[in-house]
Amino acid sequence: MLTLYYAPNTCALASHIALEQAGADYRAVRVDFARNEQRSPEYLKLNPKGRVPALVSDRGVLTETPAILQYVAQTHPAAALAPLDDAFALAQLNAFNSYLCSTVHVAHAHMRRGYRWVDDEAAMAAMKQKVPQNMADCFALIERDHLQGPWVLGERYSIADPYLFTIAQWLAGDGVDIERFPKVAAHHRRMQADAAVMRVLAVAQAPA
Amino acid sequence: MLTLYYAPNTCALASHIALEQAGADYRAVRVDFARNEQRSPEYLKLNPKGRVPALVSDRGVLTETPAILQYVAQTHPAAALAPLDDAFALAQLNAFNSYLCSTVHVAHAHMRRGYRWVDDEAAMAAMKQKVPQNMADCFALIERDHLQGPWVLGERYSIADPYLFTIAQWLAGDGVDIERFPKVAAHHRRMQADAAVMRVLAVAQAPA
Repeated sequence: MLTLYYAPNTCALASHIALEQAGADYRAVRVDFARNEQRSPEYLKLNPKGRVPALVSDRGVLTETPAILQYVAQTHPAAALAPLDDAFALAQLNAFNSYLCSTVHVAHAHMRRGYRWVDDEAAMAAMKQKVPQNMADCFALIERDHLQGPWVLGERYSIADPYLFTIAQWLAGDGVDIERFPKVAAHHRRMQADAAVMRVLAVAQAPA
Repeated sequence: MLTLYYAPNTCALASHIALEQAGADYRAVRVDFARNEQRSPEYLKLNPKGRVPALVSDRGVLTETPAILQYVAQTHPAAALAPLDDAFALAQLNAFNSYLCSTVHVAHAHMRRGYRWVDDEAAMAAMKQKVPQNMADCFALIERDHLQGPWVLGERYSIADPYLFTIAQWLAGDGVDIERFPKVAAHHRRMQADAAVMRVLAVAQAPA
């Protein structure tokens, strides 16, 4: 039995969808950011980073979305969520997921979590101003060079898809119209129509 | 034959060391950041992100350090650079590398590449001020929770080691004394004494 610690509207959604699509034996536990539970002694004991997602297995705790996604794919091969038998294709997939975590997620985080990198309010306001352009630039690159369509890797669905879906959910709040990127928008609608995605959203985005 | 595009003092060093330690058939090509070659039409055709590293294989171009590192390990299994037969251990390794790219490298980038996230000089100065504390916080977490010693994964050397070594190279320039973290400092000295690391540094850090 795996346990996923998540919070609504965070990147934990990607791991949540992957677990559901893999048919994994898991439960999902919500961490209440409004009550700052991610900084509670109990949670920090589990995940000293004070973030989500965290995936607890009988071997220990895993963090970081790209690592959790590949782990779910590797331990549930029947779900065929990654090209595990093709090192180059797997590397392309991991390059995409790594770009999402290190560049796109980071660009987004400057909207509401600027306190990570500066202490003064004026600098945080300056960061917010640039977020729409940075997110639009990232998604222009994804649209042009990375999203092969209909899925990220082309005809083959993979763990890149729930991760792209998760981060594209943030575009509206970052002041970017997803319709500027027709392939991304079509990908988003296709994901929203998936039964497993709908089941996860009903749980993960439900009011507290 | 693989071709690695790199620049001195960048995270491309991690991939460079891994290729050398893997005994890969590769050549390394320097991209001259002083001449802004990473933004030249030729380079952007190769890597539209305008960054390093980029690894060119006969299947295509790979980017993003964690993806390249796992690819090198998977395609050179005799070098035993990753626990490829253990999904959980591989996920722990990838979680570490993902933390380096999405949190530690990003914390460092606010020192000299603040223009990525803001347009005004005052905000860039505010970012620089917080870098020493952020880098120290990251390395305190690495020291306490992640670097098992002597290598990141304990007795087993892996692709996490050249990546940690690469980012730890930046501590002095970020105003952090590596000796505050005894395990990290010992790891750094052990890496510096490795013959493959010395060969790569002689090439990668040589004056233009």
